Amino acid sequence: MAKIIECVPNISEGRNQQVIDEIVGIIKACPGVTFLDLSSDTSHNRSVLTFIGEPEPMENAVLAMTEAAIRLIDLRKHRGQHPRMGAVDVIPFIPIKEMDMQECVDFSKRVGNRLWQKYQLPVFLYEASATRPGRQNLADIRRGEFEGMTEKMTSEEWKPDYGDSLHPSAGAVAVGAREALIAFNINLSTSNVEVAKAIAKTIRTGGGGLSCVKALGIFLEERNLAQVSINMTNYKITPLYRVVELVKAEAKRWGVHVLGTEIVGLAPMDALVDSAEYYLQIENFNKETQVLEKHLL
Amino acid sequence: MAKIIECVPNISEGRNQQVIDEIVGIIKACPGVTFLDLSSDTSHNRSVLTFIGEPEPMENAVLAMTEAAIRLIDLRKHRGQHPRMGAVDVIPFIPIKEMDMQECVDFSKRVGNRLWQKYQLPVFLYEASATRPGRQNLADIRRGEFEGMTEKMTSEEWKPDYGDSLHPSAGAVAVGAREALIAFNINLSTSNVEVAKAIAKTIRTGGGGLSCVKALGIFLEERNLAQVSINMTNYKITPLYRVVELVKAEAKRWGVHVLGTEIVGLAPMDALVDSAEYYLQIENFNKETQVLEKHLL
Repeated sequence: MAKIIECVPNISEGRNQQVIDEIVGIIKACPGVTFLDLSSDTSHNRSVLTFIGEPEPMENAVLAMTEAAIRLIDLRKHRGQHPRMGAVDVIPFIPIKEMDMQECVDFSKRVGNRLWQKYQLPVFLYEASATRPGRQNLADIRRGEFEGMTEKMTSEEWKPDYGDSLHPSAGAVAVGAREALIAFNINLSTSNVEVAKAIAKTIRTGGGGLSCVKALGIFLEERNLAQVSINMTNYKITPLYRVVELVKAEAKRWGVHVLGTEIVGLAPMDALVDSAEYYLQIENFNKETQVLEKHLL
Repeated sequence: MAKIIECVPNISEGRNQQVIDEIVGIIKACPGVTFLDLSSDTSHNRSVLTFIGEPEPMENAVLAMTEAAIRLIDLRKHRGQHPRMGAVDVIPFIPIKEMDMQECVDFSKRVGNRLWQKYQLPVFLYEASATRPGRQNLADIRRGEFEGMTEKMTSEEWKPDYGDSLHPSAGAVAVGAREALIAFNINLSTSNVEVAKAIAKTIRTGGGGLSCVKALGIFLEERNLAQVSINMTNYKITPLYRVVELVKAEAKRWGVHVLGTEIVGLAPMDALVDSAEYYLQIENFNKETQVLEKHLL
């Protein structure tokens, strides 16, 4: 049985298709990795790539991708809606098969160290790989962004885990192991973004809401509706159905209902099976043995 | 990419554990097949086995299993609640991976032919492998059971597809390719079996209900409740959630609700993902590309 890791790096280019294509092409050309998804956002000027592979091919692909991003993306000229600190802004690794979180943490540290050694790109270890409290959360590491990072890194608190000075054009990168993240949006039967914002505030972890849920209220211009935009950082702790049911309950206060939802990119099978199990009220279901495909993986 | 077939044979022994163990052991000892599930019913005096493998190992395992069942099970002495016509009563093949239904039909015919050639066991091709109308349905083939089969087979209509005379102790077998079947039970908040029977009648295919649904109302003595016991013969046509929602709607007429459900044995991932998609109201979901594990199969 092979170990499989998923990698979902975010690169700071969402507009120049030639640059995006070249970086994607380099990953696709790496033997032993399978490219699964590209999602670019022009207003963010940022792309999310998804690929999977065994540890050694994965390491090679991440190095090749980073080399290309450093060569092709200059943060000094980068503008976009989304906060960023590097040409490759973040490199999350998710253990998919035959690998536990600790092994994936070790893998992320090996790759992080090589990124500094090989390309002089300073690395902050984050999420499960974080080496001190206050570094689990990417937003905390990235605060100040590329432009403020040189000064931030002079403090002992924000010394990178690998490296000591910012890369002049490519900035810094966060590398770490984490659970699969599900990008999940819930569309509401209102165009009033304030309703989405109020609901987002009540369901997210910070607001007395659910664990492992990040949520924002946004307005979707093309559909003239308000959306609760959610990152579920651990579907094993907080399942999809619980978020949907809580949003439905909170929406009632506003006389609003759920029009539909979206999963952006990929979701693990178990996240969907958990919700089927809940809604179908299946008793004593063993998802490790009773889902046929589990025996084929 | 390897072709994978699932086989779910029913053998006419559900009481003598030694015989069951020997037959299961013979399948487990076959290289290249993975044994997934055994479910024996003493009142039926019948066992359902589930295993998967590539075509060639699968063919060998089915031959080895049949040889053992012929040697160990004597239909002349068999008594049980469930209708049966053979020591191995039915051998369904389900195309799981890299194989379409027609290829699985061809496979079932090759295996069926060998069962007659090698063991003088007459074979009726059924379901997608049926060679004439009226032979898709196992119940029609089996009507008359072991005891009536010698006479039934003398008519032109019921001449076996392979072979011409009943095996003296092992009877006959139905062999065919079909879609995955899901054994799905719905427990009701009543001990009145008449309610379960009435609901079963309204939801099943014959009663103006849903396509590809077989249903019976039964009384579960150990839990003192009524259950709608369902075989879903094609979850791609009639999904799980539709059956649950229709049972809920029909149950209302009796002031009854659904306590819970059970999946007996295995279910394909897609059957569960379909229901998650429905209940979570996921828009534009592509289950071929957006479920991570699809890329690992």
